[in-house]
Amino acid sequence: MANLPPPGTPPDDMVPVGDLKYAEDSVCPAGCVTPDEELVRFVTNRVLQELQGRTITPESPKLVPVGISARHCHLTEEALAALYGPGAKLHPYRDLRQAGFYAAHETVTVVGPRMRAIENVRILGPTRKYSQVELSRTDGFMLGLSLPVRDSGDLDGTPGATLVGPAGSLRLEKGAIRAIRHIHMSSEAAEAWSLRDRQFVRTEFEGEKGVILTNVLVRVGKGQILEMHLDTDDGNAADLVNGDMMRILD
Amino acid sequence: MANLPPPGTPPDDMVPVGDLKYAEDSVCPAGCVTPDEELVRFVTNRVLQELQGRTITPESPKLVPVGISARHCHLTEEALAALYGPGAKLHPYRDLRQAGFYAAHETVTVVGPRMRAIENVRILGPTRKYSQVELSRTDGFMLGLSLPVRDSGDLDGTPGATLVGPAGSLRLEKGAIRAIRHIHMSSEAAEAWSLRDRQFVRTEFEGEKGVILTNVLVRVGKGQILEMHLDTDDGNAADLVNGDMMRILD
Repeated sequence: MANLPPPGTPPDDMVPVGDLKYAEDSVCPAGCVTPDEELVRFVTNRVLQELQGRTITPESPKLVPVGISARHCHLTEEALAALYGPGAKLHPYRDLRQAGFYAAHETVTVVGPRMRAIENVRILGPTRKYSQVELSRTDGFMLGLSLPVRDSGDLDGTPGATLVGPAGSLRLEKGAIRAIRHIHMSSEAAEAWSLRDRQFVRTEFEGEKGVILTNVLVRVGKGQILEMHLDTDDGNAADLVNGDMMRILD
Repeated sequence: MANLPPPGTPPDDMVPVGDLKYAEDSVCPAGCVTPDEELVRFVTNRVLQELQGRTITPESPKLVPVGISARHCHLTEEALAALYGPGAKLHPYRDLRQAGFYAAHETVTVVGPRMRAIENVRILGPTRKYSQVELSRTDGFMLGLSLPVRDSGDLDGTPGATLVGPAGSLRLEKGAIRAIRHIHMSSEAAEAWSLRDRQFVRTEFEGEKGVILTNVLVRVGKGQILEMHLDTDDGNAADLVNGDMMRILD
């Protein structure tokens, strides 16, 4: 009845909508709701997305598909070399919704100041100009890290962590954060909805664990695919699965 | 800077406001914010509680202190005997805010259908007429349990789990739930605020991880101490610590 298939064994016909659907225990795996509920929810979300259409007009309902970001990291070329060996490259495992980005086959083990470890933390590609580990507050308690809420790349004053790969380990002096709640949005969608880049909005999800999230950052950019990124604490508090639609209130 | 003392070593002068302040990694330990922040927050919350006073009037701001419930269980006498031996008794470890209830020294290990275990799950006393394990959705993913949101004791159709104690193990056929968000409230407070038993309200917490929680159940009863109980997913999504004040919106 309520017993589930193990995560990591999603049906192949389930298209991942969010970023890291099957990566971690703490993010909703394909089997986190019963098959019937899942199917209904999947179809409903798809229909909503189709209704919303590719072209957003001022009349379009302000619905944004959710992508729950499980813990993951971004690495510089140098950090990747330290962890996976000189000249190592990332190998795409699954494309993300935002064009050009992918979850890599490669993962790291993250160790915090309590010397406790979280294994199998996915590396997202391509490599970046900074290294950053995105965790939840739940992860932070386990590791012993007080994680500030930051936009990507805004790393001054953030705590560090130790990363371990198959070829070596690396002490990051900073870069461990909780990612700020944010919505990727195209310029066209922002214009249609009268929203500005860097604006904060509130978003709502109904249900028995319904929430309104405040302080959701709008990030407008050319070619951005409409999607709201939340961490697993937000996702689990609200009972969200990838592809669920949240409504922008402001 | 952001490195923390290990949970379980709170300063002795911190009075626990919520239920299970130090019980688990996933609940905010005393050191989850920096000492200065913590002190300011602690004093602020205390002042707010004093301002609110013991007598709630219609004019009192509808502020409710939060208690984050870490994973825990309630057991029948029979279940306790199976786990801790015939005639075993619970030994109070820390009083809860609600009079007569306590966190016990005794804990259990909870094992789910993936055969993964969560250790040190606190037993709350006294024993009850039913056995029940209260977990978060995060815990459920780890264990492989799809946990319905239920009021305490409403256990028909809920999944089970295996409990392990020092004297034996026990298979619960049902009883694994996520506790519904709820507020304990005295009849006097409910009358002053024009709220009814079993009513649902919305509550708000501001901040960079601000939320409005919908579907918070009001439970009115004689002698109930005003307090809102949330699970660790809700608490971590909103950056709450025990004793933070949430405002009732409806």
